[in-house]
Amino acid sequence: MKTLFWNENKLYLLDQRKLPHETSYVICADHRAVAAAIRNMVVRGAPAIGVAAAYGMALAAMQNRSSSIAGLLAVLQSAGNELTKTRPTAVNLRWAIEQMLAKAKQYSAESVAVITTQLISEAETIAAEDIKINRSIGAHGAALIDDGARILTLCNAGALATAGYGTALGVIFAAHAKGHKVSVFACETRPYLQGARLTTWELSQAGVPVTLIVDNAAGLLFQRKMIDMVIVGADRIVANGDVANKIGTYPLSVLAAEHGVPFYVAAPLSTFDLTLSSREEIPIEERSSREITHIAEVKITGDEISVYNPSFDLTPAEKISAIITEQGIIHRPDRGKIAELFAK
Amino acid sequence: MKTLFWNENKLYLLDQRKLPHETSYVICADHRAVAAAIRNMVVRGAPAIGVAAAYGMALAAMQNRSSSIAGLLAVLQSAGNELTKTRPTAVNLRWAIEQMLAKAKQYSAESVAVITTQLISEAETIAAEDIKINRSIGAHGAALIDDGARILTLCNAGALATAGYGTALGVIFAAHAKGHKVSVFACETRPYLQGARLTTWELSQAGVPVTLIVDNAAGLLFQRKMIDMVIVGADRIVANGDVANKIGTYPLSVLAAEHGVPFYVAAPLSTFDLTLSSREEIPIEERSSREITHIAEVKITGDEISVYNPSFDLTPAEKISAIITEQGIIHRPDRGKIAELFAK
Repeated sequence: MKTLFWNENKLYLLDQRKLPHETSYVICADHRAVAAAIRNMVVRGAPAIGVAAAYGMALAAMQNRSSSIAGLLAVLQSAGNELTKTRPTAVNLRWAIEQMLAKAKQYSAESVAVITTQLISEAETIAAEDIKINRSIGAHGAALIDDGARILTLCNAGALATAGYGTALGVIFAAHAKGHKVSVFACETRPYLQGARLTTWELSQAGVPVTLIVDNAAGLLFQRKMIDMVIVGADRIVANGDVANKIGTYPLSVLAAEHGVPFYVAAPLSTFDLTLSSREEIPIEERSSREITHIAEVKITGDEISVYNPSFDLTPAEKISAIITEQGIIHRPDRGKIAELFAK
Repeated sequence: MKTLFWNENKLYLLDQRKLPHETSYVICADHRAVAAAIRNMVVRGAPAIGVAAAYGMALAAMQNRSSSIAGLLAVLQSAGNELTKTRPTAVNLRWAIEQMLAKAKQYSAESVAVITTQLISEAETIAAEDIKINRSIGAHGAALIDDGARILTLCNAGALATAGYGTALGVIFAAHAKGHKVSVFACETRPYLQGARLTTWELSQAGVPVTLIVDNAAGLLFQRKMIDMVIVGADRIVANGDVANKIGTYPLSVLAAEHGVPFYVAAPLSTFDLTLSSREEIPIEERSSREITHIAEVKITGDEISVYNPSFDLTPAEKISAIITEQGIIHRPDRGKIAELFAK
């Protein structure tokens, strides 16, 4: 089951809103359809929305009717702005769009047709690279996982959150593939229930034992010494190592520190945003109150309830035991170590 | 809207499973119906299930067909055992049944009819006392709340969790009644959504501003300095001041400590269990996986998912700024201060 693929000049996105009950694809023929799919959570997960946005840029080039290169570049800039606005926290989206714009500019001495062809090819490359990168994150991260490890995770940082294989779950898949008997506790991840709907499904399909808990139960699991480590993904990592990730990540980092349990973040280098110095600068998306007041279209609360629905929180670097990237593991991340990694 | 009341020899329980969409009562004519209502969450909240169980004992006496006092006492013992088993963590249930058994024994030199009359009267007293106790908790606790305080709470420790007025919410109502402009963030409280369904409804009706959040969002609220204090109820408080309360309480206590925010527990003396020394001895109820896999009868997860659904967690005394009781406030609770309170 592919998270997304390109076929006959259209982008196919697995409709994650319908999982695990139904597997169907939303077919995007232009960049507006891709933007809507990202906004509406057809596709989610920082790396996956980056890849989807790259294809969205390729679609914008294909739909372009301007015969001038300047016209095409303006179309691409506008499409990029539209795609960037869909989800403000995950930086991979912006990263992918910048990659695509740079590629277009690289070929700006050529023709509109050449640029368009190059952009389709670049989107394919970004998608293929994402899977390779995740396998590399998995290989590095698996070294941190002992046989028998009981791992807590939040949200879904699996194949469904990427072009394939996954970041946090990629590490778990790599340990599992080595023959380690790992087991996972999946936090259901309110409000959108990515853990309950996606992570349990993805791990079960891979044969990794998984137990679903409500997010509230994580504390008791730490108290009862049922957790050996936490592994989560990331939506943005800034210059000092602070991490924005799904709402509920920060409390897990505080609990892990309280109980002396390692807390790992698995993410590609495209999730790093070195233009921001620390977590306070990261924009936090707020989503519709309906994600909380209604579950599976059933209304839970009374009328006219005031709701606050931030989608991400901020984990300070000092609560993170290590960040696992495709270039290796940054233990006890800080500004210096991150700068060093990017200087390579 | 009364949580429960006695009318024409039957116990009326507000069906909290249907709130806030529908207000209807389940009518219990015998102790088995009361036991089922407690087990199935028609009535919930430690003090409320204690009061319901007391009425259940009165119903058992009324249904008794034995003409001997020994026969009646055996019937009561058996009914008490059945009621106690319905929810193992909240100790008020056991406390109320013990009160009722002691009352029966007190009149064991009299007749079956006298004992039965006394038990009905005792249940009425326990219910009326519970409201008085809550008002007293409120009066003591209100002194801790400054004008403008932004209060975080979990689950529902309001009028719906008691015979009336509430414990944690009673403190908030008392501050509100004093004219303090308090506002509340209500954690939705997965899996059973008491916060989303009951606390938002109860506070809105009382004119207290309330904002609903997912449990996962509490961490960000602390990070953004949006919380001045946490107030929760309790299901059992043991001799050293450790507290069992709704799953998700312990993580809030850790976050509060991390951010230097006071963490208060409001509970009557009937919630204390001095027979247990510390939190490790408290039995933790596990409930059906269906509470997690289905929401409002809609299935969320795939088939055959493994689920762990503990209903309570354990907050160590050292994370508690104060316990608010009807006898006053125990600051920085410990074994000595609690022993002293009960020695009075």
